[in-house]
Amino acid sequence: MPYLNDNYLKLKAGYLFPEIGRRVKVFCDQNAEAAKGLIRCGIGDVTEPLPSAVIAAMHRAVDEMAARETFHGYGPEQGYEFLRHAIAQNDFRDKGLDVSDDEIFVSDGSKCDCGNILDILGHKNKIAISDPVYPVYVDTNVMAGHTGEASEAGAYTKLVYLPCRPRNGFVPEPPKRHVDIVYLCSPNNPTGAAATRAQLDAWVKYALEHKALLLFDAAYEAYISDSTLPHSIYEIAGARDCAIEFRSFSKNGGFTGTRCAFTVVPKSLNAQTKSAEFKPLHPLWHRRMTTKFNGVSYIVQRGAEALYSPEGKAQVRALIEHYLGNAKILREGARKAGLKVFGGMNAPYIWVRTPKGITSWQAFDKILGEANVVITPGSGFGSKGEGYFRISAFNSRTNAEEVARRLQALKW
Amino acid sequence: MPYLNDNYLKLKAGYLFPEIGRRVKVFCDQNAEAAKGLIRCGIGDVTEPLPSAVIAAMHRAVDEMAARETFHGYGPEQGYEFLRHAIAQNDFRDKGLDVSDDEIFVSDGSKCDCGNILDILGHKNKIAISDPVYPVYVDTNVMAGHTGEASEAGAYTKLVYLPCRPRNGFVPEPPKRHVDIVYLCSPNNPTGAAATRAQLDAWVKYALEHKALLLFDAAYEAYISDSTLPHSIYEIAGARDCAIEFRSFSKNGGFTGTRCAFTVVPKSLNAQTKSAEFKPLHPLWHRRMTTKFNGVSYIVQRGAEALYSPEGKAQVRALIEHYLGNAKILREGARKAGLKVFGGMNAPYIWVRTPKGITSWQAFDKILGEANVVITPGSGFGSKGEGYFRISAFNSRTNAEEVARRLQALKW
Repeated sequence: MPYLNDNYLKLKAGYLFPEIGRRVKVFCDQNAEAAKGLIRCGIGDVTEPLPSAVIAAMHRAVDEMAARETFHGYGPEQGYEFLRHAIAQNDFRDKGLDVSDDEIFVSDGSKCDCGNILDILGHKNKIAISDPVYPVYVDTNVMAGHTGEASEAGAYTKLVYLPCRPRNGFVPEPPKRHVDIVYLCSPNNPTGAAATRAQLDAWVKYALEHKALLLFDAAYEAYISDSTLPHSIYEIAGARDCAIEFRSFSKNGGFTGTRCAFTVVPKSLNAQTKSAEFKPLHPLWHRRMTTKFNGVSYIVQRGAEALYSPEGKAQVRALIEHYLGNAKILREGARKAGLKVFGGMNAPYIWVRTPKGITSWQAFDKILGEANVVITPGSGFGSKGEGYFRISAFNSRTNAEEVARRLQALKW
Repeated sequence: MPYLNDNYLKLKAGYLFPEIGRRVKVFCDQNAEAAKGLIRCGIGDVTEPLPSAVIAAMHRAVDEMAARETFHGYGPEQGYEFLRHAIAQNDFRDKGLDVSDDEIFVSDGSKCDCGNILDILGHKNKIAISDPVYPVYVDTNVMAGHTGEASEAGAYTKLVYLPCRPRNGFVPEPPKRHVDIVYLCSPNNPTGAAATRAQLDAWVKYALEHKALLLFDAAYEAYISDSTLPHSIYEIAGARDCAIEFRSFSKNGGFTGTRCAFTVVPKSLNAQTKSAEFKPLHPLWHRRMTTKFNGVSYIVQRGAEALYSPEGKAQVRALIEHYLGNAKILREGARKAGLKVFGGMNAPYIWVRTPKGITSWQAFDKILGEANVVITPGSGFGSKGEGYFRISAFNSRTNAEEVARRLQALKW
């Protein structure tokens, strides 16, 4: 009989969002009337339509697929040159950052990329993650066998947890000890905190000293409104020698259901073999993508390209401002409700402390049951998330305003 | 310094198709005039436009993404219910095969699925593959550390190679020895051979006796024209207890650039833990897909659904008949050129023996240089592919006829 991957059996029951979905379903089944007014601020999913520049580009691309002369079969697995170039030029070179077209690898999602990156890394690395943290970083390391068993609170042995608390502004500091790989997410999911230049400087300094690899998740960079904050890890000198960056069109262009993202792997980035030889990671990721992936739909890549047109850029800007406007309303609403509020300034997430003595899931159940609003319990993101919940600003303006009202009406 | 995955260093230089691309580019750069008449029968990529039912469905879906009320954000990672249902009903239940909607996992490609399936399997399995073979089966096992080093001819230690030769009709027989996992591809890429019911019966019998897992790649099932041949492994009694099936819309609906496929994981399928407990694989694959994947583009899934409409089915039928018509012309052309020809009856590939003393790559270079036709050297698919080449029937009718003529004009 074939062997299965025993590491999967170490995973704690249910990925966070399926569990939220299950509880919401139970509530709606039992409260048909209340369910009609349910507002979802749980999963970080966009609600506004795709920019019209994207719609037009995808219609054109669909039409191209209808004629032999303009039909597109297999594309380059790493992404079409037109999109790799648009990304490298607009997101990096136009901002003075040294990233070449062929350091961009187009994919169907940052979730996939964050998980798949482990394919090219070895099994002996000491890995650090923030706590709280986007669960995919942890779960994919569990699946790959890089952890021991989970504790009752959901912490896995062998991982190094970097606590994020009010006193560090929810941005982890480099640890005293040596680690080989560090996941950083800024602006942060779930806390909404964005790292300052000084904080990222410290991380790059640590990485260069320890020859560590930074896996920098910048999926929310478009939400940075404070002009002093870095959008890319490559704004920090030395980062090309120690960092991979993940970016996505999900939260800027509204591509959560359209699917397109990319990873930047600098050619200057090295890792070591078991026999301590240095080798560049770029060819490994290239090989991984050409062997285990077949590229993103041509139609979708044309849609993503349109985000970089002048109209596309203006439309993305309007989307971001819409969601940041919601974030401000929700922050304010939660604050007026007497809750302690973090994030939501440079990110579409508000991180709220639960009233004393109330756990994250208790807050979830109460807000669902009494305000008919779905939020995300902080403990779902790690043990240091206990005592917090996340409100997503991805919604219509009307809903954001209504949620702010309902939060203020809640009696704790 | 982080450790890289040393297994990648065992991979033989260049995945087959990039290497072909490189040689073609060199030829075209040096022979601008001849390059104008170049005909590509190398990579198995469709050439005809998408069915009009798909085009209409994708235009509608793009329009849905343009309005808040009909916008789609994150979908279920396993695929939308509308598509899972259409697949399970049309491809399986309507044919009397017992497959439920939730045993279907929609993905962005069979290449991805064939590689990713290893995520949920352990590292101690004894793995058998055909020779010649679709390179992705081998390379993904090399990457996962399931092999030793490669020999000069490209064969990896620890893998069990099952030779495919004229005397077994290029369909491998079950081995005498025990293996845990077997990759089977029928109709076959690259040989174009399709397994008979008796041959698949023998494989399921072997798998049940040895408690082995069959990874059955049916990406080309739509090309079966002999009505006695099985389209699905689940046509064989017992297969639900021993087989995973991979299917794709790439070669029936022409989705190579649009990207959609699916995997069937029966709930009755078990594997063992290290401590010899039996566990079902279905929840592991479900967990893998929900954690490391974010679903296929909504627009693309609507396109795939349209393949199951009455017009969609008729249009797919017409596409298949077009390519099978090409295959017949190419078979005939190669035969008249004095070459020994296999496949091409129930598959879009013709498998041709090179004239005596000529290697696969020599044949490639000669056919490229003198006939200005790109084929695929058989040795790229494994050591038993040496002395053969593959002609792809994915082309226009005019090109297929021209290639047949040029093959006949070649002097060996």
